[in-house]
Amino acid sequence: MKMKKIYIKDLNNYFNKEIELKAFVDNIRDLQYVQFVVLRDSSGKVQLTIEKNEENKEMVEIISNLTLESTLTITGTVYENPKVKLNGMEIIPTNIVVTSRSLEELPIDIKNKEKSLRETRLDYRFLDLRRPDNYLFFKCQTLILQAMREYWVNNGYIEIQSPKIAASNAESGAEVFKIDYFGEEACLSQSPQFYKQMAMAAGFNNVFEIAPAFRAENSHTSYHSTEIFMVDAEISWIDSVEDVMDMQEAWLKYFLNKLNKKYGEEIKETFNVEISNTDVKFPRITFTEAKNILKDKYNYVADKTDDFERKEEELLCEHAKELYNSDFVFITKFPKSSRPFYHNIDNQGFSNSYDLLYKGVEITTGAQREHRADVLEKQIIEKGIAPKTLQFYIDFFKYGCPPHGGFGFGMARLMMKIFELDNIREATYLYRGPNRLTP
Amino acid sequence: MKMKKIYIKDLNNYFNKEIELKAFVDNIRDLQYVQFVVLRDSSGKVQLTIEKNEENKEMVEIISNLTLESTLTITGTVYENPKVKLNGMEIIPTNIVVTSRSLEELPIDIKNKEKSLRETRLDYRFLDLRRPDNYLFFKCQTLILQAMREYWVNNGYIEIQSPKIAASNAESGAEVFKIDYFGEEACLSQSPQFYKQMAMAAGFNNVFEIAPAFRAENSHTSYHSTEIFMVDAEISWIDSVEDVMDMQEAWLKYFLNKLNKKYGEEIKETFNVEISNTDVKFPRITFTEAKNILKDKYNYVADKTDDFERKEEELLCEHAKELYNSDFVFITKFPKSSRPFYHNIDNQGFSNSYDLLYKGVEITTGAQREHRADVLEKQIIEKGIAPKTLQFYIDFFKYGCPPHGGFGFGMARLMMKIFELDNIREATYLYRGPNRLTP
Repeated sequence: MKMKKIYIKDLNNYFNKEIELKAFVDNIRDLQYVQFVVLRDSSGKVQLTIEKNEENKEMVEIISNLTLESTLTITGTVYENPKVKLNGMEIIPTNIVVTSRSLEELPIDIKNKEKSLRETRLDYRFLDLRRPDNYLFFKCQTLILQAMREYWVNNGYIEIQSPKIAASNAESGAEVFKIDYFGEEACLSQSPQFYKQMAMAAGFNNVFEIAPAFRAENSHTSYHSTEIFMVDAEISWIDSVEDVMDMQEAWLKYFLNKLNKKYGEEIKETFNVEISNTDVKFPRITFTEAKNILKDKYNYVADKTDDFERKEEELLCEHAKELYNSDFVFITKFPKSSRPFYHNIDNQGFSNSYDLLYKGVEITTGAQREHRADVLEKQIIEKGIAPKTLQFYIDFFKYGCPPHGGFGFGMARLMMKIFELDNIREATYLYRGPNRLTP
Repeated sequence: MKMKKIYIKDLNNYFNKEIELKAFVDNIRDLQYVQFVVLRDSSGKVQLTIEKNEENKEMVEIISNLTLESTLTITGTVYENPKVKLNGMEIIPTNIVVTSRSLEELPIDIKNKEKSLRETRLDYRFLDLRRPDNYLFFKCQTLILQAMREYWVNNGYIEIQSPKIAASNAESGAEVFKIDYFGEEACLSQSPQFYKQMAMAAGFNNVFEIAPAFRAENSHTSYHSTEIFMVDAEISWIDSVEDVMDMQEAWLKYFLNKLNKKYGEEIKETFNVEISNTDVKFPRITFTEAKNILKDKYNYVADKTDDFERKEEELLCEHAKELYNSDFVFITKFPKSSRPFYHNIDNQGFSNSYDLLYKGVEITTGAQREHRADVLEKQIIEKGIAPKTLQFYIDFFKYGCPPHGGFGFGMARLMMKIFELDNIREATYLYRGPNRLTP
């Protein structure tokens, strides 16, 4: 029977026992009579102590020639030792195997983020990711993603994977990447919008998709990227957009609570961030009310009258925090001029849609969709688009389709806000932007 | 308080109660004194009975003008009625709202798959998907995907999302789609191979990714597509490729058991397929043994000496079924000539890799990877590739990297085999091939 892999954090279960440990070399102190090696794995660090005597000659030789960040498999006995600062324990090894050898000099400082330029860190992202804060970040993202899906799967949603390569069409304007598709021009999907709505026409009731989307925006900001990991949901048989907000709110609370329960402490320690309060109901404010609040309470009147500026989003979040103790606020009923053609419009010209603001920025747009082919076609014409370029999409709604709505957003932006990171490059496994295609 | 949405399968909990139901119109019989409407949702069908009397005048009018596949919201009372063939119940409505109206004629027959050409069904996939077998298929896929991730997340794996746009490199030969990336040439990722190995160098221990990959193969077979939904896992600190097989076997059994438990009966009824036996240990046969079995037992000697033909895979599965009662069989230790440069090679020139065969075909390739930069570079040269074109990848292994291995495969092919479908087009939400970019 093969031994279970032991992680450093569990070593206190093995005092006075012989174990096998596999880890990176975090530090070496080679003294006159003894060698101290600090081993590191994803769960922590531990000291290896090798006395320089005849019996240990081979191991001493190995350690003398070892480079930091190499990997070892060691066999040895774990002892409690209060004199050892690091966890009050040490391993006395009987065998050491170098499983991989690092070059002497590392291109970035993996102990101290601030000592290397961000762009150099991104060049060597595989080393940058060795920092414990990054491991925690991706451990948390894993939990969040799984909890997101869990909520939906437990509620009978179907997971779809819509195609990322599509024929070129009207929605795909300047911001779309073009592909050579066997000599024809195709493009990369900007969003699964049309295809998740297709699932509604297919009678799938409720669906979700978590998958990449692509934007050919030549933006060099701290929150844009050309490849976005999108989270999308769409639900059928709704009475109004309120149903979509209800779902999103319950869903957000579900995964935030799970995150807080499992990693809240660690996140606070590492990122100095508390997970948002989920006991309150997220306030819902109409666009018109919001503009009034901005004017009356903050004396702020923006040039934009059919949408918000960044500053306005910040103030509305401040307002929601102050009045409702909520980090989240829904703004509803946007003027249709600022919304895409597929949003359902009420009889006063407002779209039955919302933006969800979180800690000062919009993180999601959601809406009831226009599910009637004839009305949809009118709205497409109103936006100055030729309906024939969207015919395949309009056709989805010609053979019966439930009233439906949904939302979508980029995972990295949500993660940035949860962990209060300053740049999307730090919230992405491998960032892609106009000037970055590698590694 | 908003009423919970009621699905047809749950109606027997509401006898003699007034309910609201939202559904598609599956059938209409408009008789002299009564109208029968069959409503359908994803969970089943139910009959609506409307007597043609003065009181019902408005409803009768609506039904008279109704088209099949339109959607309704009805309010009414559910009654047990043994005379009604369909589920022994009926709904007597008091209100009917048409929420969407279908065109009179449908472009495909959604009741009978065989009555429409496959290509026409794919053109109208949103109608094709209305068939209950398709809904069951995607419900099962949802369960499988979630169970796959659940197994990994419960075992501490990190979920990664690697970039799908990358700089062009050597591995990306003829079979890669080219993108115009702000005037430069980039390409679409064929596989997350390099990037999941990068996570090993980052010290992430164990990772998985379920995401699209892209192959510019001009193949028109029943099992090729240009967009593949790939399932990938990679694990660190392995002793040998046996660890990878152990994990894959335990993981396969985990989700197959979950599938069988929840949907085994329905799958048998709808697809006439039994979920494979998972009580047995999957046999592991070396490539050399396998070739001997083919020769000695089946008198089959193929031209290919470093890989298998389709026919050989079929025979090996027959052998495994006969001898071990297993639908799965691992074939190990392939000649290195048939394997990519990144597989770890033993001292006899065999790769420490495997193919997993299932019901007659190879569904996964797995391997221990070569994690030593110098050996990797040698293997790259041996395959006739210039190392500098893969420098970014070789660099991953220069600063220490745990021994690791993993596997990857296309979800649709697995689903085809589980459900014994004859064509990958039927096992994909929206198929993409050389001649199909729409809808």
